[in-house]
Amino acid sequence: MRAAVYNGPHSIEVAERPDPVITAPTDAVVRVVLGCVCGSDLWYWRGESPHALGPIGHEFIGVVEEVGTDVRNLARGDFVIAPFTYCDGTCAHCQAGVTSQCVAGGSFGNHGIDGGQGEAVRVPLAGSTLVRVPGSGHSDETMRSLLALSDVMCTGHHAAVSAGVRHGSLVAVVGDGAVGLCAVLAAHRLGAARIIALSRNPARQEVARAFGATDILAERGDAATEAILELTNGVGVDAALECVGTGQSMATALGIARPGSVVGVIGAPHGVENPIEKVVFRNIGLRGGIAPARAYIPELLDDVLEGRINPGRVFDFETDLDHVVDAYEAMDERRAIKSLLRIGTKEGRG
Amino acid sequence: MRAAVYNGPHSIEVAERPDPVITAPTDAVVRVVLGCVCGSDLWYWRGESPHALGPIGHEFIGVVEEVGTDVRNLARGDFVIAPFTYCDGTCAHCQAGVTSQCVAGGSFGNHGIDGGQGEAVRVPLAGSTLVRVPGSGHSDETMRSLLALSDVMCTGHHAAVSAGVRHGSLVAVVGDGAVGLCAVLAAHRLGAARIIALSRNPARQEVARAFGATDILAERGDAATEAILELTNGVGVDAALECVGTGQSMATALGIARPGSVVGVIGAPHGVENPIEKVVFRNIGLRGGIAPARAYIPELLDDVLEGRINPGRVFDFETDLDHVVDAYEAMDERRAIKSLLRIGTKEGRG
Repeated sequence: MRAAVYNGPHSIEVAERPDPVITAPTDAVVRVVLGCVCGSDLWYWRGESPHALGPIGHEFIGVVEEVGTDVRNLARGDFVIAPFTYCDGTCAHCQAGVTSQCVAGGSFGNHGIDGGQGEAVRVPLAGSTLVRVPGSGHSDETMRSLLALSDVMCTGHHAAVSAGVRHGSLVAVVGDGAVGLCAVLAAHRLGAARIIALSRNPARQEVARAFGATDILAERGDAATEAILELTNGVGVDAALECVGTGQSMATALGIARPGSVVGVIGAPHGVENPIEKVVFRNIGLRGGIAPARAYIPELLDDVLEGRINPGRVFDFETDLDHVVDAYEAMDERRAIKSLLRIGTKEGRG
Repeated sequence: MRAAVYNGPHSIEVAERPDPVITAPTDAVVRVVLGCVCGSDLWYWRGESPHALGPIGHEFIGVVEEVGTDVRNLARGDFVIAPFTYCDGTCAHCQAGVTSQCVAGGSFGNHGIDGGQGEAVRVPLAGSTLVRVPGSGHSDETMRSLLALSDVMCTGHHAAVSAGVRHGSLVAVVGDGAVGLCAVLAAHRLGAARIIALSRNPARQEVARAFGATDILAERGDAATEAILELTNGVGVDAALECVGTGQSMATALGIARPGSVVGVIGAPHGVENPIEKVVFRNIGLRGGIAPARAYIPELLDDVLEGRINPGRVFDFETDLDHVVDAYEAMDERRAIKSLLRIGTKEGRG
């Protein structure tokens, strides 16, 4: 099969890789229909974070081609969403709903595990990892939203849930990447009364508004903090969602969070200064981390299939596997919010 | 009046200070009956944290001597508990229950505000700060527990509440100071099924057991982390309560917290390394800070008056105001868990 392979910073190529085969009775082989590029993929693309050389991409939806003998709840031909981490569903962390910390788990597209930016994937622990999508004949719009459930929508939801967003909350989302936009949508879905999105990019502002943002602020850094404190009579917001991971974005989130609130933190930290003084002296909590996508997908899937949420709107660039480098570059240069890869069709390889 | 005064590290003296008088209509003057020394007082005693020169001590109970014209819910002769921070009760933070972040608030015994280690205190915002204690003829045991509500018991409770301790929780408390011991008591009060206390000091172990600890571990650092992971089948605890504030204690708390849990953090941070990687990559939250004692006192007061909790057991050294330096030294040298100061009587100055 053909798959994107990471050879080092700014060096990704589409290469021949062995066709995935069942190696454990809990495996499945999934033929990828749609994959995409994650904001976190840009960290290794730019050389800012290490990544194992080899297959890449941790988000995909596809069709089950083969299952191991222990996989009883899936069959060849099932259309499935892969959460970006696989999990056994039985360990203490999975049972507590923190599937992203499964003791037997891992993530796709790293350390030799097939990635979603390729034609097929061997999925470990498939029965407890993959989520079967009911129905058939899904529109392209629905398909894009199903793909968003693989990571970004669940990650935005995790930020909102971790920060305790509930009916009537006043929320601010720091970060207008695909995850930040999905955090807006998640906060809206959870009943937030007011959602302030920080963005100075017209395309992203438009998606933020469509997702439920009530206020858009173009300010950054200290100016953003001041503007939000002014909007909130100096009190701060009930829930600040930190969806970037830089020192500046964390400082903004901590600066606008009201005392007693919890900052929802899902950005992979790069250059974040020690926030412990704010935790203690300003009574601002921090919670979030790697989204337990497998635990979240079922409830979000219902909303996608019934048309209540449309997180696939974050995909505003698309290409095929051969042009995967274009997909990275479009995001790296901020021409795209998120790049979609059309890799196969539900009926067979594209 | 006479009061303890901070002149710099290892230099505290009892000196004459002006008798407090009402300066604002919301003030009260309180004659101190019992005061004490806080673990956090040791930071400036040792020169490890700055502190304004002048009056000290933020924990006290006493008798109202005079009230300003706007203080309608208190009268001369009322016996009161002072939470360690004063607050207006009306700002957004107070209304949200975070009285420790009151926009008009501050703490006793700092920046020229009278301290609890003295004969009398001008209490700003007295009507919304002081909590009247009903009844009379309280035993000495009860009096000591009422004093503990001024800070340590509320702070231990804040650690437990922030970490989400509830019925059936598996809890570990890092720190065997007075606050850590009160955190054990708070966790027990909230229904924790198992409470692991880290202590190698026999006197503190005994109080921990009396407060509800089911397991005592003498290990420290990595050995403590390993021991607790072994006790919990590698999963970690539902709630780790960090009641010290050093890099080692935070590392232990983060090392034993199960993914998805929240570490209750109330130790003033000294040398804590950036925990953000654990927050994100291990899904461990951080929450706590300065306890909103004013908000917590009413419910805890009921339990003290009805004999259900006895947090005053943390006082194992006592002296009078003249010997306040002994009180500091006993704690600094770890001969005492917490030092009580008998300053006056409910009937008049002692």
